[in-house]
Amino acid sequence: MPRHRRTGQLFVISAPSGVGKTTLVRSLLQELPELEFSVSCTTRPSRPGETDGRDYHFLVREVFLAGVKAGRFLEWAQVHGEYYGTDKLKLDEWLEAGKDVLLDIDVQGARQVRCIFPLAHNIFILPPSWGVLEQRLQARGTEAPDQIASRLSAARREVQEAPWYDFIVVNDVLETAVTDLISIIRAARCRRMAQAHRLRAILDFHPPPS
Amino acid sequence: MPRHRRTGQLFVISAPSGVGKTTLVRSLLQELPELEFSVSCTTRPSRPGETDGRDYHFLVREVFLAGVKAGRFLEWAQVHGEYYGTDKLKLDEWLEAGKDVLLDIDVQGARQVRCIFPLAHNIFILPPSWGVLEQRLQARGTEAPDQIASRLSAARREVQEAPWYDFIVVNDVLETAVTDLISIIRAARCRRMAQAHRLRAILDFHPPPS
Repeated sequence: MPRHRRTGQLFVISAPSGVGKTTLVRSLLQELPELEFSVSCTTRPSRPGETDGRDYHFLVREVFLAGVKAGRFLEWAQVHGEYYGTDKLKLDEWLEAGKDVLLDIDVQGARQVRCIFPLAHNIFILPPSWGVLEQRLQARGTEAPDQIASRLSAARREVQEAPWYDFIVVNDVLETAVTDLISIIRAARCRRMAQAHRLRAILDFHPPPS
Repeated sequence: MPRHRRTGQLFVISAPSGVGKTTLVRSLLQELPELEFSVSCTTRPSRPGETDGRDYHFLVREVFLAGVKAGRFLEWAQVHGEYYGTDKLKLDEWLEAGKDVLLDIDVQGARQVRCIFPLAHNIFILPPSWGVLEQRLQARGTEAPDQIASRLSAARREVQEAPWYDFIVVNDVLETAVTDLISIIRAARCRRMAQAHRLRAILDFHPPPS
């Protein structure tokens, strides 16, 4: 049985493309600036408005695959023909320092992280309906019709895994969804497991350091 | 294994006297007006500013004890020589109607409710320190010094049970504590268990009614 040590908590957020996860995550990080965001590595080309190091670490395929060989990634996956992965060095450092970390990864990656951090809080973002998701993908205007169709069918496959997640947030009105995400993180910080130090302090009970 | 039926969720809040629970609960109910508050019954005399039917249902001892005999209360307890209890009729009605309910009860009552609603969310409010709690009890100015001493030692006994609660909120700055409470309730509403209807809707999966 692991002795309680105060480390950061891990929040894993997944959503099919088009649900608005990127906007949600950006708003969330603005509201909770102390939350560390683990920027994923990817081999896919950057989209308009995306910045290297903020949205993704854009890596060429050879560098990514060398990282896989060297055990650099906590999880990695191939999605729509491109590679995505989470660098584990920074993540471990943050958690050890007691900082809460947000991971924005797909269901494949979330399954792998579940095996390594079984107590992570898993959050799935749902679109209000399939019709709305299709509209949002079309409105983005960055993809050809056949790519949109491919993303939609990928979204249907991904949503099949939503029932395994701990929290379900519906992104209908952006502000409501952001407040839901903030609430999930604040509530997790109030959970007994994260407040053991508070309990020890008020109960005047201080076990000796091991 | 119970089949999922969409009912309201129960939130149980406990705190030793002087921690500021009454103010916290009032602010919380203002912010979340859809949350139903189960007003406790008590035999203790009302304090300045308290209204019958809003803060408590003030009952004479004979009526209370008749209620106990008739099985009117979900839980009841004797604290500082006075009786406190939760009327179960309204509570069941709200939960059945899918409304979330807040119960403000002491640790004795919370233990009883834990046996009846094992999935209730239990929240304990801690003072920032014992010194602050003593100051707050003195500042209230409604009690004699020996009553304050008695409340303080009762508080020390109650806080011993805080480690059994699901959530620990420290009432240092009122606004922060209120936001924590709101977050706990919002996050509970995003939990998979409370979102099963959303999952069924988006997965196009509708089990037949039983």
